[in-house]
Amino acid sequence: MSLKIALAYSGGLDTSIIIPWLKEHYRGAKIVAVIGDVGQGDDYDRMRQKALTTGADEVVVADLVSEFITGYIWPTLRAGCVYDYKYLLGTSMARPIIAKKQVEVALATGCQALAHGCTGKGNDQVRFELTYKALAPELKVIAPWREWDIRSREDAIAYAREHNVPIEQTVAKIYSRDQNIWHISHEGGALEDPSLEPPEDMWLLTRSITDAPEKPEYVTIGFERGTPVSVNGKRLPAVELLTLLNQRAGEHGIGRIDLVENRFVGMKSHGAYETPGGTLLVTAQREIEALTVDRSTAEMKQQLGLEYARLVYNGLWFTPLREALDAFMDRALAQATGEVRLKLHKGHALVAGRTSPQSLYSDTLASFTMGELYDQKDAEGFINIVGLPIKMQALLARERQ
Amino acid sequence: MSLKIALAYSGGLDTSIIIPWLKEHYRGAKIVAVIGDVGQGDDYDRMRQKALTTGADEVVVADLVSEFITGYIWPTLRAGCVYDYKYLLGTSMARPIIAKKQVEVALATGCQALAHGCTGKGNDQVRFELTYKALAPELKVIAPWREWDIRSREDAIAYAREHNVPIEQTVAKIYSRDQNIWHISHEGGALEDPSLEPPEDMWLLTRSITDAPEKPEYVTIGFERGTPVSVNGKRLPAVELLTLLNQRAGEHGIGRIDLVENRFVGMKSHGAYETPGGTLLVTAQREIEALTVDRSTAEMKQQLGLEYARLVYNGLWFTPLREALDAFMDRALAQATGEVRLKLHKGHALVAGRTSPQSLYSDTLASFTMGELYDQKDAEGFINIVGLPIKMQALLARERQ
Amino acid sequence: MSLKIALAYSGGLDTSIIIPWLKEHYRGAKIVAVIGDVGQGDDYDRMRQKALTTGADEVVVADLVSEFITGYIWPTLRAGCVYDYKYLLGTSMARPIIAKKQVEVALATGCQALAHGCTGKGNDQVRFELTYKALAPELKVIAPWREWDIRSREDAIAYAREHNVPIEQTVAKIYSRDQNIWHISHEGGALEDPSLEPPEDMWLLTRSITDAPEKPEYVTIGFERGTPVSVNGKRLPAVELLTLLNQRAGEHGIGRIDLVENRFVGMKSHGAYETPGGTLLVTAQREIEALTVDRSTAEMKQQLGLEYARLVYNGLWFTPLREALDAFMDRALAQATGEVRLKLHKGHALVAGRTSPQSLYSDTLASFTMGELYDQKDAEGFINIVGLPIKMQALLARERQ
Amino acid sequence: MSLKIALAYSGGLDTSIIIPWLKEHYRGAKIVAVIGDVGQGDDYDRMRQKALTTGADEVVVADLVSEFITGYIWPTLRAGCVYDYKYLLGTSMARPIIAKKQVEVALATGCQALAHGCTGKGNDQVRFELTYKALAPELKVIAPWREWDIRSREDAIAYAREHNVPIEQTVAKIYSRDQNIWHISHEGGALEDPSLEPPEDMWLLTRSITDAPEKPEYVTIGFERGTPVSVNGKRLPAVELLTLLNQRAGEHGIGRIDLVENRFVGMKSHGAYETPGGTLLVTAQREIEALTVDRSTAEMKQQLGLEYARLVYNGLWFTPLREALDAFMDRALAQATGEVRLKLHKGHALVAGRTSPQSLYSDTLASFTMGELYDQKDAEGFINIVGLPIKMQALLARERQ
Repeated sequence: MSLKIALAYSGGLDTSIIIPWLKEHYRGAKIVAVIGDVGQGDDYDRMRQKALTTGADEVVVADLVSEFITGYIWPTLRAGCVYDYKYLLGTSMARPIIAKKQVEVALATGCQALAHGCTGKGNDQVRFELTYKALAPELKVIAPWREWDIRSREDAIAYAREHNVPIEQTVAKIYSRDQNIWHISHEGGALEDPSLEPPEDMWLLTRSITDAPEKPEYVTIGFERGTPVSVNGKRLPAVELLTLLNQRAGEHGIGRIDLVENRFVGMKSHGAYETPGGTLLVTAQREIEALTVDRSTAEMKQQLGLEYARLVYNGLWFTPLREALDAFMDRALAQATGEVRLKLHKGHALVAGRTSPQSLYSDTLASFTMGELYDQKDAEGFINIVGLPIKMQALLARERQ
Repeated sequence: MSLKIALAYSGGLDTSIIIPWLKEHYRGAKIVAVIGDVGQGDDYDRMRQKALTTGADEVVVADLVSEFITGYIWPTLRAGCVYDYKYLLGTSMARPIIAKKQVEVALATGCQALAHGCTGKGNDQVRFELTYKALAPELKVIAPWREWDIRSREDAIAYAREHNVPIEQTVAKIYSRDQNIWHISHEGGALEDPSLEPPEDMWLLTRSITDAPEKPEYVTIGFERGTPVSVNGKRLPAVELLTLLNQRAGEHGIGRIDLVENRFVGMKSHGAYETPGGTLLVTAQREIEALTVDRSTAEMKQQLGLEYARLVYNGLWFTPLREALDAFMDRALAQATGEVRLKLHKGHALVAGRTSPQSLYSDTLASFTMGELYDQKDAEGFINIVGLPIKMQALLARERQ
Repeated sequence: MSLKIALAYSGGLDTSIIIPWLKEHYRGAKIVAVIGDVGQGDDYDRMRQKALTTGADEVVVADLVSEFITGYIWPTLRAGCVYDYKYLLGTSMARPIIAKKQVEVALATGCQALAHGCTGKGNDQVRFELTYKALAPELKVIAPWREWDIRSREDAIAYAREHNVPIEQTVAKIYSRDQNIWHISHEGGALEDPSLEPPEDMWLLTRSITDAPEKPEYVTIGFERGTPVSVNGKRLPAVELLTLLNQRAGEHGIGRIDLVENRFVGMKSHGAYETPGGTLLVTAQREIEALTVDRSTAEMKQQLGLEYARLVYNGLWFTPLREALDAFMDRALAQATGEVRLKLHKGHALVAGRTSPQSLYSDTLASFTMGELYDQKDAEGFINIVGLPIKMQALLARERQ
Repeated sequence: MSLKIALAYSGGLDTSIIIPWLKEHYRGAKIVAVIGDVGQGDDYDRMRQKALTTGADEVVVADLVSEFITGYIWPTLRAGCVYDYKYLLGTSMARPIIAKKQVEVALATGCQALAHGCTGKGNDQVRFELTYKALAPELKVIAPWREWDIRSREDAIAYAREHNVPIEQTVAKIYSRDQNIWHISHEGGALEDPSLEPPEDMWLLTRSITDAPEKPEYVTIGFERGTPVSVNGKRLPAVELLTLLNQRAGEHGIGRIDLVENRFVGMKSHGAYETPGGTLLVTAQREIEALTVDRSTAEMKQQLGLEYARLVYNGLWFTPLREALDAFMDRALAQATGEVRLKLHKGHALVAGRTSPQSLYSDTLASFTMGELYDQKDAEGFINIVGLPIKMQALLARERQ
């Protein structure tokens, strides 16, 4: 019986040559190309056509943008995730949703195998395959880049020519990129040397600081229980909200990152990211938390956010631990409702005010503070008790000298 | 027998009126005014004179700037401390060294008590008194702001007039500020409402983004085992190094922070900070770590940095836990030697290259990677084993449906 | 207007003398004595009578046993809480439920104040008052032991005699004890010297190892989603379940603890605890987790259990952080269903088998393991990737020597 | 050129057949059998002879017992390591020291490869190979169990017969065991079913509770800065100290563990361990800490101990993170000097008193406590400030209802 394979298809050279390769290596195999639209802005009709031309037997294009934002980006944002101090996890979050859709299509179309076009050096192979294991442990996994002899871009182009795969880019593609509605990543090219500054023409979504407007722009983001719901007072669906913030932030040159990062597969790599709207959201989210979440909860939330970020980065999305951390975050953010005003200017997203009906800092309370709620004399007792172990140790040290 | 009291003296209205108040409430008390120079840039001769005029019996001015940097700022920097996502702990770090000097002077001059001018609402009282408890548990502590009836600036001015304490500021002081070589803090005034943007004229150490030069400037900071040692290739003593970075960063508008923070004494407050050179250092330090510290150590270091920041913020400097964390950091940073190039531009400190003889990312290794060191096929085994629990759970769930 | 005060009443000398004291110090005060039955096994009719005799205006006896177990003990058990390596938090958990009932009675009976009989040296005052603050922040708090001049047991007896408070114990009470359905605590007496072994006659709920039966007894405890539901295959209501386990464990001498502990108020104290049934439950709960919770979730759960234990110990029950941790635990324990067989023998609760329909260790899987699920060759790839940073560092070190 | 291979040789069937196998598969290979004595109590002369008979070209027997205790066991003990609530890491700690010696011998004798006899399912392969990577990244690694076709004990015996390898055990070996001076582990046999109680005749180092003496025995263990140094007041070298404690504890039936554990390679396994002396030491070490380490340091130490245990279990001994954690532990234990008295009785090691010149609980201090050091009134201020966020939230919630 011939194999039917669902392939996570991106339309690029890398996944395009996989179709003939699979047909060659699995005689009689049927290929279902699965295209997940997570906002990368491709021409999906053309991709569909290309997949068929290249040999795919079926093509499924799935619009995942809205679910990507609400089911993956918002939870990661709410958990306060930043990996290695800077990375906002744009690629990491996209892999599980694409792989999940791929699995759904595979099961619906009777496939026995799942294939992807990730190399053996990166994180993405892990993210795809851990999702496969969680959602369809019985399906066979095919990772051509770990199996075949193609070792370079030149090899791939040669293979494409031999197998009549249309090659769109005639000029050398300098950077390896991954884009979705949250971000774009850049790797390779000049980035291979982390001692260099990334060249200005690498950046795609954000103006340079020099070109950004001299005049600041104010944007107000509204949150409900930790989730963004409005911009400038207007409630917006998730896709519109993020699209709008991407435009405004990109215009002001906001969201560029240059990062030496720790890959899950053990090596350090150097990349660059642009996350314009996301940078506004992460900034604003921290402000609404600062105003509405009590200190102890906020401290624990920050610590668990580091763990959550690791899970997302490592592709461990569909795990009990991620779900348990989500349950924590939900409760921790129960009061995180309010608005944050940001000033966009020359690459900065500067907080310019925050308000909340749940504010733990409020005018009423501030005047309270010195009255009913807070007696300065209490501080003495507090210090004496907090300092008791310190004093004991000092006295003992003295006594025993 | 009359009491001899060492007072942490700042020269401001708040500590100035403490001198007559102490003399009034502790009949015959002798006052030793202790002035710790941590780089706040005051006129110490004038302060000395003012203390004597106001009634101090002795005045000691101690130059603590260099020790402040190497013994307090560098360890906190090395530990990667940032409190509440933003605050670089400038005031927090200064309190223990001032209190330590105050204790030394107290013991050397035969004092039986220690006094400070912190209010009962803030963190500083805790930081002073926990240091007292650690270093001189037998000395009496006097905190006039928690004892007297003075409740406002107006009360204080009135008291000063009655007791012939010179009042320098005739116009209303809008902000409450604390400055040292690392930073300046701003509280009060317009900051009392966190829904507002801080007014431009509040900032003192940094140019506005608009006024900052159009042309970027590059600065290279050198580190040895995690500690900054040079700028632009030139080895500099700590004080010169930080002074230089403050100048360059301030000129480019770098280091402003607007923060709703969680005080140790249980309330939220709103303040603003300028830490120009410090912002460069924190940025550069993370980059040298990213290049030279392995992932597991870096992850643990980041987590412990949150704890270290809490200790510093809460005034728990002289504790076994802080020392134990320091021992951890020392080892974790054993390879953190190298240089980081920063581009200063319009309020940004952008990394523009990092190098290290200890780099875990290096050209040699990168080529290695695909050869001896890294076999793509290993990734399959890695994923299968990392994914084993996930697959098991999925299979079990299926089986038991 | 006269004050109406709800007093947490225990019937002991300590709270009994509070009634006349309150009446003396708050002229015309009305006292509502609130007795929370958490399984301490007192004669509540006699307590009610005594309170009235001593001067209480109203007495409310509330049966809290079942709610104590399901709402306080089970969550703490599920979170895996053990404080300072040993303490199963029996007193800590009881305080918030008693204080909550006291607040409810206070509000229902129109009280303006809450009073308790805890001393100023211990943890219980914190636990009571933090609950008051969470549930009735507007009520006045009265803590006589921090206010009056009574400093010793002798003082208290004298005061009782003067005010016609019946004194039941004519002989010296050696230990200070607190009992409920989960445990009994012992403090004072010979325990004041931690270099001594607690005397055999101090223990009340458990036989000595010597007196325990020579013959072991087996007990099987069933769990559903981490919560105990049955004993020896028989579903039991919480109170019956715990009562039965207390009997069986006590008979076999199980659950004695001798502990030097870190009080929240900064000092170390020495106490002893007996938690017979609880010891069985904590032991069994860990076993059901070991079988059904995956490694990563279990590791994080253990870490968060330390934090949860601190919250409970410190009286921070009614906080967002405790609730957020509960949400985590709920999800983490979603599969923790099954049975654990314990062998009770000479003070030991030894695991003697565990089974679960959700077991991640199962016969089927074990045979799988070497077949479909686990390929030994995968281990090589796993080790190579886990070891990549180690190998890189070693090679770099060599190269740079 | 022929290969020279250093083999970690145990003398058992598993490693014995590796010698002919290596010679067969690496034509002309020379084998250096390395025997690390970590206290497993074998007859090393006989092992040496057997290795030579089986085909080894050289044999090195290294006495590692003392270094094993002081360099591996003591640090792990000091860090408070217990894996999965129970496992005292006896096998985990032994692997790195054996592998280290193997590497030293390999380098001294000019080997180009390292071989071990661990299977592909367990943790030990990881522990060996991660040590190889850290200490000799350039040497080739050979893991026959992951390469050859031998899949069962029967296969191995057949292979041995064919290659004239002497087979000592004629009867079926039921359990797979690993022994050293710290512990013995048991796997396989009846343990494959975790629903069963391990049979009494499986245990080797400890008497049963029934057979243990009726009469308790007291043992006092002395510590210096967290490290055990004496028994019953007599200073002993590490080997003697641990040997003595093993005898006494074994006699009283102390140190049996039955554990479902989470292997690093992703599966759960079931095993049993006997760690007689180690159980006394872990118990006593916690007591000396409870007496001498302040609460905050102790809490952090406990948390980091979980991480340290994971590192040891996972074979990550020779890593910067383990060394950095060691540095933390050293400082944290600076005061952990004193004596702990244990009562050994019927399988229990019960604390029966602890003393320390550095005690933070002391008679002097206890009386201090109510006098100079502790004012009950301070508790009120402490509670008010700790409770401020709780009260604020409650008031806000009320106000906004």
